[in-house]
Formats: sequence, structure tokens, C-alpha cells
Amino acid sequence: MRRYLPILEWGRTYNRSILTDDLMAAVIVTIMLIPQSLAYALLAGLPPVVGLYASILPLLLYAIFGTSRTLAVGPVAVISLMTASAASAVADQGTAAYLEAAITLAMLSGIMLAILGLLRAGFLANLLSHPVISGFITASGILIATSQIKHVLGVDAGGENWLAMLSSLANAIDQTNVWTLAVGVPAMMFLFWVRKGGKPALQWIGFGERAADLTAKAGPIVAVAASILAAVFFDMGNKGVSLTGAIPQGLPPFAMPSTDVALIEKLWLPALLISTIGFVESVSVAQTLAAKRRQRIAPDQELIGLGAANVASAFSGGYPVTGGFARSAVNFDAGAKTPAAGAFTAVGIALATLFLTPLLFNLPIAALAATIIVAVLALVDLKTPLQLWRYSKTDFTAHAATIILTLTAGVEMGVIAGVVVGLALHLWRTSRPHIAIVGRVPETEHFRNVDRHKVFTVPHVLSIRIDEALTYLNAHWLEEYVLEQVADRPALRHVILMCSAVNEIDASGLEALEAMNHRLGDAGIGLHLSEVKGPVMDRLKRTQFIDELNGKVFLTQDRAFAKALQDTGEPADPVDHYLARGLI
Amino acid sequence: MRRYLPILEWGRTYNRSILTDDLMAAVIVTIMLIPQSLAYALLAGLPPVVGLYASILPLLLYAIFGTSRTLAVGPVAVISLMTASAASAVADQGTAAYLEAAITLAMLSGIMLAILGLLRAGFLANLLSHPVISGFITASGILIATSQIKHVLGVDAGGENWLAMLSSLANAIDQTNVWTLAVGVPAMMFLFWVRKGGKPALQWIGFGERAADLTAKAGPIVAVAASILAAVFFDMGNKGVSLTGAIPQGLPPFAMPSTDVALIEKLWLPALLISTIGFVESVSVAQTLAAKRRQRIAPDQELIGLGAANVASAFSGGYPVTGGFARSAVNFDAGAKTPAAGAFTAVGIALATLFLTPLLFNLPIAALAATIIVAVLALVDLKTPLQLWRYSKTDFTAHAATIILTLTAGVEMGVIAGVVVGLALHLWRTSRPHIAIVGRVPETEHFRNVDRHKVFTVPHVLSIRIDEALTYLNAHWLEEYVLEQVADRPALRHVILMCSAVNEIDASGLEALEAMNHRLGDAGIGLHLSEVKGPVMDRLKRTQFIDELNGKVFLTQDRAFAKALQDTGEPADPVDHYLARGLI
Repeated sequence: MRRYLPILEWGRTYNRSILTDDLMAAVIVTIMLIPQSLAYALLAGLPPVVGLYASILPLLLYAIFGTSRTLAVGPVAVISLMTASAASAVADQGTAAYLEAAITLAMLSGIMLAILGLLRAGFLANLLSHPVISGFITASGILIATSQIKHVLGVDAGGENWLAMLSSLANAIDQTNVWTLAVGVPAMMFLFWVRKGGKPALQWIGFGERAADLTAKAGPIVAVAASILAAVFFDMGNKGVSLTGAIPQGLPPFAMPSTDVALIEKLWLPALLISTIGFVESVSVAQTLAAKRRQRIAPDQELIGLGAANVASAFSGGYPVTGGFARSAVNFDAGAKTPAAGAFTAVGIALATLFLTPLLFNLPIAALAATIIVAVLALVDLKTPLQLWRYSKTDFTAHAATIILTLTAGVEMGVIAGVVVGLALHLWRTSRPHIAIVGRVPETEHFRNVDRHKVFTVPHVLSIRIDEALTYLNAHWLEEYVLEQVADRPALRHVILMCSAVNEIDASGLEALEAMNHRLGDAGIGLHLSEVKGPVMDRLKRTQFIDELNGKVFLTQDRAFAKALQDTGEPADPVDHYLARGLI
Repeated sequence: MRRYLPILEWGRTYNRSILTDDLMAAVIVTIMLIPQSLAYALLAGLPPVVGLYASILPLLLYAIFGTSRTLAVGPVAVISLMTASAASAVADQGTAAYLEAAITLAMLSGIMLAILGLLRAGFLANLLSHPVISGFITASGILIATSQIKHVLGVDAGGENWLAMLSSLANAIDQTNVWTLAVGVPAMMFLFWVRKGGKPALQWIGFGERAADLTAKAGPIVAVAASILAAVFFDMGNKGVSLTGAIPQGLPPFAMPSTDVALIEKLWLPALLISTIGFVESVSVAQTLAAKRRQRIAPDQELIGLGAANVASAFSGGYPVTGGFARSAVNFDAGAKTPAAGAFTAVGIALATLFLTPLLFNLPIAALAATIIVAVLALVDLKTPLQLWRYSKTDFTAHAATIILTLTAGVEMGVIAGVVVGLALHLWRTSRPHIAIVGRVPETEHFRNVDRHKVFTVPHVLSIRIDEALTYLNAHWLEEYVLEQVADRPALRHVILMCSAVNEIDASGLEALEAMNHRLGDAGIGLHLSEVKGPVMDRLKRTQFIDELNGKVFLTQDRAFAKALQDTGEPADPVDHYLARGLI
């Protein structure tokens, strides 16, 4: 029971001191989350209030089902972009159908996450390798920043992919609204500055280090407040500057998500991708923070927690949510001790939705766009491709393919291409396992690769070490490899497979061994195994293979080699030593 | 050049003695291939002559491009079934569009095979594991035999899947034509008998062993000839028995395959599956035969050979072909020495097409159906599922899923399901690598699994041996595993990862190591590596990881453990010995 309801665990020891810490953190995160929620809803192409709705009920549900003590759940940039991409494919922005699609995405994604959690199938997220995720996030950052430039310029522009966006912006640039630019550019400059310069400046005017750090994180709310004042003062609404306008006041409505099968058919794949990307990001944030306090998170239960949060988002008129990196770090630094901090944040956002929305009427869209641009440019990571290029060309290939396809063919194609390329490269490598022909190191019982060491071999005996589990992916290759080696060696009488690193032999591997056994038998060559691991041997004994084997199974490679030398009439030791020393 | 044209290799040493052997084999295979070609065309839902066309030009092309000396190419049962399934999805049997679809399948399949061969991508066929292939072939055998029963009964029946076929047969059984049954049942009985009993019977009447064996293989032609005579004698054509009817005489027409994009869009996936199944079957037959004479085949060149054969089939009005097991074995046993035997067989079939087709007018379809049923029931393998169940439950799962889906959802879904299930199970296993917590075996430098051996450990030091390459599929799991172990051990000061079996660390593995390093560092725990393989270490040195590591890299696990003991103030040896002996 406690496995599925972590709140029962931490709730038992909840006390006043923890309450104070959690409340303090909640106040700080709430201040940070208000402009973020509005901005990410804008990015998702949704009314600003939807961002607020997505920051209330989901936080409560995560507090009940989630295992991270400090993860702050809510709308995030990459998921908002993916929501926009998926919803645009079924409806036009600003329509009821578009909002319905976003809500349906939250519902589908929540259900998928919860099912994966109940099936304990979190390992599927492994299919997204680090190079693919980081490529996807870099490309998303570029796409998001580019998509917001139009709001800073105050122009109409669009575009299905990055190049189309750029050319659409280039065409629209001469319609730039100077008043909009006058809000957006200073806001961006301030936000860029405050990231690095805010904390030292606050410390200089007398703030303590921790207070300075946390106050600097409230930069976006300062930018938002200043731009509202500027908008009112200069009457920007009548000078062509887009303002947020009326935001409905009050708590989120109860919304029954759509059960339209045609809509679900169109949205299940994007919802799956949103779930996966959201889960992978969230878990990595949660793990980083948990490890700092030697706490644990349970990835399979995280799936259930995020699933519940997304279902709650769908039922309260929100859109897909996940754990965000920046706000979770602020929550952690502000001293949050339990998921109750998230619940208090939810109350804070609910109060803001009830009472603060009239203040946001005059908020220029350009200021929100500025907060998005500054936030997502931090996601663009230009060091990783260089590091990958130096470290591993195959990983670089997966990374580059993900970036290029995300930019040119959209976020869904980008993720899928990354997974497929990564999987294909993995299978290609696995299908060519590391194999070495080995010989005896003179005067020892050790066997080493003939290509790297000066070792003793004889033409009648071939010893092959297999450095990988023998599975269907590489069994054929091994079979071909051995048969090729045999075809090259007319004097061959014995083949010894050294299985010290073979952790598993699946049915296809067994079939390959059987085929080798028959083929080598037909050619009058004995097949022997050496150093077979205990559990592998136990399973082989359940088959006919050991009985049908032409040769024998030896405990050590040394014994197998000695027996083969004896059988071919070689006086093992002296010859061995003379040969290895190059004397004969 | 010789790599792509194996004929240049064997052609150089061709002589009269080889010619005699090849001619002899060609005569025997031709006799066997005539009824087979007609029967498999019937199975594919095509006019009988298409089977003959598919047995002429493809054999010539394979003789030029193929690497097996004895593989006999032509129509085979499983591929004919797959052709019928794919072509039925786009057109009705008996129409020109149906024939066009079959020809297009041959063309697409040929082009795909050739491209895979030029890209040297034969390893992709590894995705079909042995349990999946054998499950598919068993299910295909059941499907094929069931589909032919209607011809033996002389009734009209159909059905999209196996259960539908059975119920359709049950509904039609009371329309059974007794004359048809009178041809089909004796033919089946004779063919069943001749498989096992033909050779001893022929030896008993004085044939030599080899002659008896080869003559017994001609059983189908005897059944065909006898049923033609019976059909003429009893005037069966007028008694409701379906006859083959007029087969156009003459060489295959030159046919320009369709370039209709809509058709290609519908057929590319079935063509890919036909190519893969055909290739896997053909290569396994070719390898079995080649190994018997210590010859080699080159799988990537085999792709080109089979590709050329299929393209040739498409241009001469045929349908997809591949190397068949039974006829290749006959070719081998009959003494074929080079692919020229295949070319001579092509000439034989061409002569038959020119002169023998009038004789086949009165051939009852029931006799052809009988040859198919007897041939494919040999494909049904009931031992494999039992063996798999005992050997490996995961392999059994893939096998059973393939059989069930092939029978219930069709051949294409069956193959795809097998690949997907196999891959998912493989990824699941790979995502949970074998990991052991190890301790020192007393009075030695060896480290063994704490769960299996009585070894020495201390609460300050955790030694973990990883028995798998560290890749994106398991990196997260390892990270979580280590963090969980750490969370359980409050006294922990040092973690040592023993990397003796880590053949590779990809970028995600490196990321996981870096994350572990930071997290353990935050918790005041040192991370050390031991026994890192040379090539893996070379790549790690190209990164920042070694510099940023909290701990050190040790050449041996023993040194790492000793250093950690020293660091935590343990007097290593005496404590070690006392503890291990249970004295303290």
C-alpha cells in the first residue's frame, strides 16, 4: 500500500518545523511559477489561464503519488512545444477544438504513464539515449526561442519547421511594432543579466547569499511587473502592443476530457512521446536532487505520480505537465522538505487565479515571450555535440540525426528518428560481438588475443574467446565467423570456444552452437567448450546439445587446449615453449 | 569485381567432369521442380505457368551472382503463401491486377535484397530470431495445409485466417466431390508413404542406395503422372474434378513490372517481409550445404544473388523466389558441383515449358494440392515449442506469439509481432545487466559475488562488478541500482566499480558514470573504478571524466579495495582474515 501511496510514508513524521520549511519554499516557487505558467501556456498556443490550471490540481496529485520530496511539477517548455505541435495537427490555435486536443493529450499521457508504472515498464524510457535526449532538447530550445521572436517583434509569423519559421520572420520583419520591441528587448536584456548578475548585485546591496540567490530567481516576476506598469503608463494597448487581456477569475473548472475515438487515434502517438520525454526529464531531475540528500526515488512509482498529475490536469482544464528542472532546483534550494511544499504551491497558484488575474490584463505578450526565450536558450547545449564527436561517432550520429530531424521535420519525427537510429546502431554493434582468437601465454595457463600478445598456437587447434552473451542478434555472425575461420585452416582438427564472458545463451545461440557442431562434425573437426559459466551450463544440460557435442566441455581453457594437443599427437610442453620463443 | 560476380571464380576451373556432374543433378532437380512449380503457383493463387516462369530466368541470374555452389532457387511454399496474402490484399485472385501485384512483389523484393546486399546490411536479418522463424514456419505450414484441403475435397472455401478457414471448410464439406477426393486422398497417401518407404522399396527391387534415394524424391512426378492418367481414363473433367487446363506454351514473356506508386506503397512492407524471410531461409540452407564440403558462402553477396533472381523473376512474368530446402538438398545429393547445375535446370524447365505443358491439361488440381500438403506438413515442428519451454521462457514467448499471431492475424502480422516481441524481450534483458556485489575471497586477491561465496566485505566499502557493456539501455538502471545500494548503507565511504567485463561504455554510460560521480561526491562518497579494459580506458581519457572523478582508477580490484580499507583506517589483513573466519 505504501509503495503506491508515498504520502503515507512521509506524512507519518510530518511536524511543525517541516511545515515552516515547506511553506517558505512554496511561497518562493509560487512567485516563480506564475509568470512561467502564463508563458508556457502561450508557447503551447493556449489561453494563459490554462497554464495556471495546469499548476494547481496536478501538484496536489503528485504530492500524494510521487516519490520525489522536492520535484516541482507543472508546465515546462519542451512539453509545451510538443503539445503545440500535436494540437496544431488536429485543430487551429484559438479554437475550442485546439484546447480540447491539449486536454486530451494530458489525459492520454496521464493514462499511459500510469499504465507503464503499474506494469513497472519504466525501463522503456531507456530507449531514449542521452545523445538523443540532449539533441532533442537543444533542437527544442532553438525551435522555441525562434517561435517566440515574433511576439518580441509584434508581428504575425508562422512556419511548420525551423527554416520555414526563419523565412516567415524575415518576411514579416518590416512590420515590426516599435512599442512591442521596446518592451520585449529590455525585458530580455534584464532577464539575461539577472541570471548571472542578479545574485552578486543583491549581495552588494546587503542581501545574504541564500536570500540573494532565491530573490534573483524571481527575476521574471520583476520583468512581468515592470512591463505591466510600462504598458499602463504608456497606454501600449492602443499602440499595437498585444496584451494578455482578461483572464477568467476563479478556480479551474471540472472538465470531462474528450472520449472521441477519432481524436484519440490522432493523438496517441504524440501523447506517448510527450509521456516519454516528460518522464525521462522529470526522473533525471528528481534523481539529481534526491541523491544530494541521500534520498531515493522509485522510477516506476514516479510514472504513477506523473500519470496522476496529468490525469488531474486533464480533468481541471489543463494540459500536459511534468517535473521542471529550474523550479525543482528552486524548491530544493528554498528548503522544501516534503511533497507538501508542492501542495502549498498549488494553493498559492489557486489564490493567484482567484485574486491576481485582473492585474495581468495589461501584461504585454512580449514580456512573456522574453521570459521564454531567456529560459530556453539555456537548454541549447553546443558542447555536447563536440564531446560526442570526440568520444563516440555512433553516439554523435544519433545526436546529430535527432537535432536535424527535430529542426526540419518536427518534434515527433525528431524523437522517433533518434530512437530508431540509436536502436539500429545498438543492434548493429551487438550483432558483431567482440571475439578474439586466443593462444597460450608461454609458461602460464593464461590465454590471450593472438593479435595483441605473443602467444602459442598450433595449426590443428583453434581457440576462440567470445566476449558477449550469445543471443539471436549475434548467433549467426558467430556461426559465420567460425565457419570462415575453419575454411581458412585446412589442418584444423579441434575448435575450442572459450565462454568465460558468455553470460547467456538464448535459443538462437543454442541453435547456432548445434549447427556449428553438425557442420564441424561433417568436416571431421571436434567442437569443444571451455569455462562455461554455471547458470549457462545448467540450462545447456537441459538440452540434447551436450550429448550431441562432437567434443567435450572443459572446466578451463588450459585443460581443453592440453587435451587437443595430446589428441593431435603434439608433445605439448616442450614444443610450446620452443615455438613461443621462436626457436623452431 | 570477383566479389560481385562469383561466376568468375568457379568459372575459371570449370571442366568436363564437373559438367557431367552438374548436368546429372540438373536432370533430377528439373523432374522434381516441375510439379513443385505448378503446385506453389497454385498456392500463391497464380496460373500454374507463372510457377514455371519463376523457375527459369531466376536460376540463371542466381548462377551468375550467387555464392552457394548447390542452392536451388525457385518458388517455395512459405514465400508463395506470403505472396498470396499480400496480393489478395490489393486485388482478387484470377484478375490481371493480382498477377501484376505478384510480379511487383518480386521486383520490390529483388530491389530491396540487392540494396541490402550492396549496403552489406545482411545483419538486419538477425532481427528474426530462431524461435520467431521456426514459429513462423510451423504456423505457415499449418495455414498452407489447411488452405489446400478445399482442393482435395473439390469444394469452394476461403477464410482470412486459420479459424475462418476451418469454419469455411466445415460449412462446405457436404459439397465434397467424390471424384476429386478419389484423386487427392490416394495421392496424399502415396506421397506420405514414398517419403519414408520409397527408398527401402526401391532398394528392395534392386536399386543402389543413392539411386533409390534420388528416385524416391521423384515421388511427386509419379503422383502427378498417375493422376493425369486417371483423370483421362475416368474422364474426370466432366465429373466435377478441377483440372489444370491449358497452360500457355512457350518461353516466359518479357514483362515490364509496374511502376504504379500507389501499388508500391501498398506492397513495400509485404515485399520487405518476403525478402527477409526468403533470405533467412535461403542462407541457412546454403550454409548447411556449404559447410558439408568446407565451402563458404558470403551472406551479403547472397543478398545480391537472390535480389538479381527476384528482379529477373519480375521481368519474366514470375513471382518471388528464394532458395528451397528440399530441392537444394536433392541438388547437393545428386552431385551438383557449381551453380551451373542451376543454369542447366533452368534450361530443363524452359524445355518443359516449351514442350510438356499440353500433357498437363488433364492434371487434377487435387493432385497438386496433395503434393503441397505433404510437403508443408514436414514444416510443422511440434518439438521446438517443447524444447523452448524447457530451455528459455522468453524464447518460448516469442515463438508462441509468432505462431498465434500468424494463425489468427495473418503472415505479415505474425512476422512483425515476432520481431517486436523478440526485440522487446531482448531490450528488457539488456536493460537489467548482470551485476554482482563482490567481496574478497579470504587469503586471495580474488573477488566473488557475496551471494554465492563466503567473502570479506566492510560497511565502508562497496565493490560492484558489472558483467555487461555499459550502454544507454542499461546505464540508467545501473545508476539507480548504485544509488539504491548507497541509500541503504549509511556508513558507506567508497564505491568501487569493477569493470573487468565492461567491453564498451557509450556516451549514455559515461553520462551515468558522471552523474554517479557527482551524486556520490555530494554525499561524501568516493567513486573508484578498477580493471578497466585498455580500449575503454583510452576513450575515457579523451573526456573530462577521469579528471573529475572523486576517486581513482585502479589496475586491479585488489589494490582498489586495499586502498579503500587503508583510507577508512581499517588494518586490512588481520581484520579481513578474522572477519572472514567468523571470529569477530
